Amino acid sequence: MRPDASSPHRPPADWALTGVSRLVTMAPHLPGAVGTLGVIAHGALAARAGRILWVGPEAALTEAVDLAGATRLEAGGCAVLPGFVDSHTHFVFAGDRAEEFHLRHAGVSYEELARQGRGILSTVRATRAASEEELRALARVRLRGFATHGTTTVEGKTGYGLDVASETRCLAVMGELAREPGLPTIIPTFLGAHTLPPEYRADPRDRERYVDLVIEEMLPAFAGQARFCDVFCERGAFTVEEARRILERARTLGYALKLHANQLGPSGGARLAAELGATSADHLDFATDAELDLLREAGVVGTLLPGCSFTLSAPYPSGRRLRDRGVRVALATDFNPGTSYCENMQLIVALAVSAMGMTLEEALIAATRGGARALDLEREIGSLEPGKRCDLVLLDTPDERALAYHFGVNLVARTILGGQVYTAL
Amino acid sequence: MRPDASSPHRPPADWALTGVSRLVTMAPHLPGAVGTLGVIAHGALAARAGRILWVGPEAALTEAVDLAGATRLEAGGCAVLPGFVDSHTHFVFAGDRAEEFHLRHAGVSYEELARQGRGILSTVRATRAASEEELRALARVRLRGFATHGTTTVEGKTGYGLDVASETRCLAVMGELAREPGLPTIIPTFLGAHTLPPEYRADPRDRERYVDLVIEEMLPAFAGQARFCDVFCERGAFTVEEARRILERARTLGYALKLHANQLGPSGGARLAAELGATSADHLDFATDAELDLLREAGVVGTLLPGCSFTLSAPYPSGRRLRDRGVRVALATDFNPGTSYCENMQLIVALAVSAMGMTLEEALIAATRGGARALDLEREIGSLEPGKRCDLVLLDTPDERALAYHFGVNLVARTILGGQVYTAL
Repeated sequence: MRPDASSPHRPPADWALTGVSRLVTMAPHLPGAVGTLGVIAHGALAARAGRILWVGPEAALTEAVDLAGATRLEAGGCAVLPGFVDSHTHFVFAGDRAEEFHLRHAGVSYEELARQGRGILSTVRATRAASEEELRALARVRLRGFATHGTTTVEGKTGYGLDVASETRCLAVMGELAREPGLPTIIPTFLGAHTLPPEYRADPRDRERYVDLVIEEMLPAFAGQARFCDVFCERGAFTVEEARRILERARTLGYALKLHANQLGPSGGARLAAELGATSADHLDFATDAELDLLREAGVVGTLLPGCSFTLSAPYPSGRRLRDRGVRVALATDFNPGTSYCENMQLIVALAVSAMGMTLEEALIAATRGGARALDLEREIGSLEPGKRCDLVLLDTPDERALAYHFGVNLVARTILGGQVYTAL
Repeated sequence: MRPDASSPHRPPADWALTGVSRLVTMAPHLPGAVGTLGVIAHGALAARAGRILWVGPEAALTEAVDLAGATRLEAGGCAVLPGFVDSHTHFVFAGDRAEEFHLRHAGVSYEELARQGRGILSTVRATRAASEEELRALARVRLRGFATHGTTTVEGKTGYGLDVASETRCLAVMGELAREPGLPTIIPTFLGAHTLPPEYRADPRDRERYVDLVIEEMLPAFAGQARFCDVFCERGAFTVEEARRILERARTLGYALKLHANQLGPSGGARLAAELGATSADHLDFATDAELDLLREAGVVGTLLPGCSFTLSAPYPSGRRLRDRGVRVALATDFNPGTSYCENMQLIVALAVSAMGMTLEEALIAATRGGARALDLEREIGSLEPGKRCDLVLLDTPDERALAYHFGVNLVARTILGGQVYTAL
């Protein structure tokens, strides 16, 4: 028995990581951390109860913490980063839309696809028809895919249920999966205002009736379960006025706010996000400079989703433009069955570098700290600092600069969720 | 003992694949095959000695072949395709150029990078300095990466040696790896005319001396080892006249011909490829309609390499344009350390759909049959037909239409090389 095992000067760790070539902390203010990514060469990390206890050069590890009871992980010379924070996804749904995707690329018009009953409403039909067990099994497989590619926190939106029972089921799925061990952290968002449900499309007055349903029944019912309320504010979805009504009510019920804004045109959503002090405004393909200034002044994170541009063969939003106007940027997958079937944040980072004018450093910050901020979780996740959750990834290469450069593959060798090694099943 | 075990009416198989949801043969003329991809629903496949013996509906399998001595693989309901044929790569080199990549994206000019000694010559330096063992170990890891992502044939170019000894070493590496079991088939190409070596850049007359070296020493020396001769015909590399001299000599020595043509500008390479009857002309970003017509008439495959556009943040070549002019198209990765560090043909297919105006069917044909044709191997590989090599991939999904739609990940569950299950090490 070591006399100093419980010394207050050397707090006991239950987990420690050594053998790291470059510990990319994303915390440049840490002692010994270099550059905007806060890289500690030959860095080490100790954790207790799933939280980071200490970060620093490996040479200082044993002086800093008591490793007597610690599980040790030897990184074998690879680079280590915080886990990716994917702050915008729709991972709870049934069915897929591969056929629609290929018909669209073969030149079939949007109108024809809608006439065939394809599009978002086909996902709503499939999701409503699925049992909670089916939805949970599908979502679990997807969450494992996120983890395999290095994502440790996944925001998930409802919005394919669009009635009280189905939206409830989707939130229940996220709640149950959040309690399962060995999966990424789930942050649920209520997106009842994703699209007008089919049964509210016959009569023009139905729009208002559905918005009333969201405001009067759904929002109060889900206030304890969803951390955010989001609205798809776009032509063809919900107007600025409808979005304002929903989000103002959500705010009084304790939800933090998000907006799908300016994806397909100048929807006014970005301006509304700034007005309401939303946590994030997402997409922003068509945001004006004036709107970006409003977002910056209101402290709203701009979340860019290049997977949509990839899927829709559309121009990519400019990350450089947001940066130049001082908007805090997050990158996310927008994982969903219609416009971005991709759970790999490494490719999203590569797209940001290839097509959005971002440097790797900017893209990695946006994919970790930016995502954390877009979830109001910057004190919990997004960097490797004492007190934060021990969520990190080991690459299978010694240098994080392989990311974006070596693209289209999975460079993540292991994902650590709360100090536990994730095992792909 | 079964009396009919050696019946001529039921040839014995040593390998059989069942439980396939969709057998995508790429051979639409086969009986029961549907559509341009020749899909056989619930198809099965039998092989002997690494060659496909029979393809058809699973219900007919046992009547068609004798399975008494066959190893059985049960696909578990997934889709099966021919392995990808990656007909343009540079997988033998040492060093990497991640730092150069990121400096370029951070705005550092090409001239400044060259002044720092970066660019292709840095790969030449590293490759020359590497031992054959080192080069082989690096190349082996990369070949495993290709196999993991579903590629069963990989063309590989020399061109980072640029002197007799180093080019010899690179060809030796490919020759040795070609004899190792459990790796993709390797098709070696001699690309001595990749760039002017550093020791031939001082005096303008050095150019001709190097071209002479290629023609008089290298070409004869490598005639037994490399199947193709390729030239990088581009401003800054080799002129049309130099390329013609090299390729005409190569042809007399029995090489088939390839050309890096019209990647960065109107180099005239495409016209030369047609004139010489090259097997393929590769890149073609700047080929004119008239040049495409010449390629079509000469039966030259146009090989498109979207990984370069991704890496260089450049416009993508239009696959639709080649198709509309009747040029046979191949898709390949151009895997190399400078302009396309990607070994995943699935992403190349997705880029073709997202950014090059190709449908999934066109892209899959280009990535299999097209690649085979670009290697003069259309009778050997590229489709699932009796007599061809038993090279195929099992996806982890029942429908090949997940490709391009579900992007940025590896959908290949297993790769089969010559009837042997590839095992990632």
